[in-house]
Amino acid sequence: MDLMDAIKTRRSIRRYKQVPVPEAILKEVLNAARLAPSADNAQPWKFVAVRDEETKLRLAAASNGQKFIAQAPVVVVACGIPEEAFPTVGGYMSSHVIDVAIALDHLTLAAHSCGLGTCWIASFKEEKVREILNVPEDVRVIALTPLGYPDEVPERTPRKNLEELVVYDRYQ
Amino acid sequence: MDLMDAIKTRRSIRRYKQVPVPEAILKEVLNAARLAPSADNAQPWKFVAVRDEETKLRLAAASNGQKFIAQAPVVVVACGIPEEAFPTVGGYMSSHVIDVAIALDHLTLAAHSCGLGTCWIASFKEEKVREILNVPEDVRVIALTPLGYPDEVPERTPRKNLEELVVYDRYQ
Repeated sequence: MDLMDAIKTRRSIRRYKQVPVPEAILKEVLNAARLAPSADNAQPWKFVAVRDEETKLRLAAASNGQKFIAQAPVVVVACGIPEEAFPTVGGYMSSHVIDVAIALDHLTLAAHSCGLGTCWIASFKEEKVREILNVPEDVRVIALTPLGYPDEVPERTPRKNLEELVVYDRYQ
Repeated sequence: MDLMDAIKTRRSIRRYKQVPVPEAILKEVLNAARLAPSADNAQPWKFVAVRDEETKLRLAAASNGQKFIAQAPVVVVACGIPEEAFPTVGGYMSSHVIDVAIALDHLTLAAHSCGLGTCWIASFKEEKVREILNVPEDVRVIALTPLGYPDEVPERTPRKNLEELVVYDRYQ
């Protein structure tokens, strides 16, 4: 799929077909995350691909009851590793959040180009996800996404006009 | 350009031709950022496109002296607005860092598909960038990138194997 078409037609998918994701396609999509750039090329990330039904249901519950998450055949949990990351982006923050977001963005675009749907999940309880997946204390959970074949074609959601978000030469 | 080709062939570009970026192409690349998803579709971002020579030189100095940044005809400074963002990703952090990283990832991929180069800049002093661009105190500077036609073809940088970053069903 053409890159700009992928960016323009990707949607957040909240209904999934009960069809498994072939192993080769799952690998292709994860590979897109693998190729992402990261500060100092540290790659401070780990992706947990969850296919176990019981675990998916628990992750949906940990995501403040967003049940559609467990409907997808795969749930990807994107984790960042601060101690492996560039520590001072802008002089004030660890790069692991940015790095993981870039990688997961690659994954969501690649998924769409393979005919798969995703949905960035921000509303979850890290402590519950940590407990369910056995995530170590020094690793942060950054985002989740279901991954599977869409069973809906959502409308485009609105965006600000370019003039509202782009300024030239100075913040104004 | 095909999406997976874009992901596979994008490189961090640190040498730029002294050729301006046409206005229509700059808009197209910024539009890719505009279309990015964000938590609750809040779009808590602002992009400063800097073409003024003196300002670019000051931004390069604020980026710990990475002079190549000013060589590019445009420098994009990606800012996040915490007070407009989803406040509790995972129950513990504002979404603005993730949101801006997704949008800037869209921009870097779109740039590459238009024949332009970019380079994620993490090493900068936020306070200096804030002063140069007049960024308000309640807005955070997340990343910068030069934007212009590449004057180099860098080798691919190494990545971990998929087995090192993907685990199944549990963190292990």
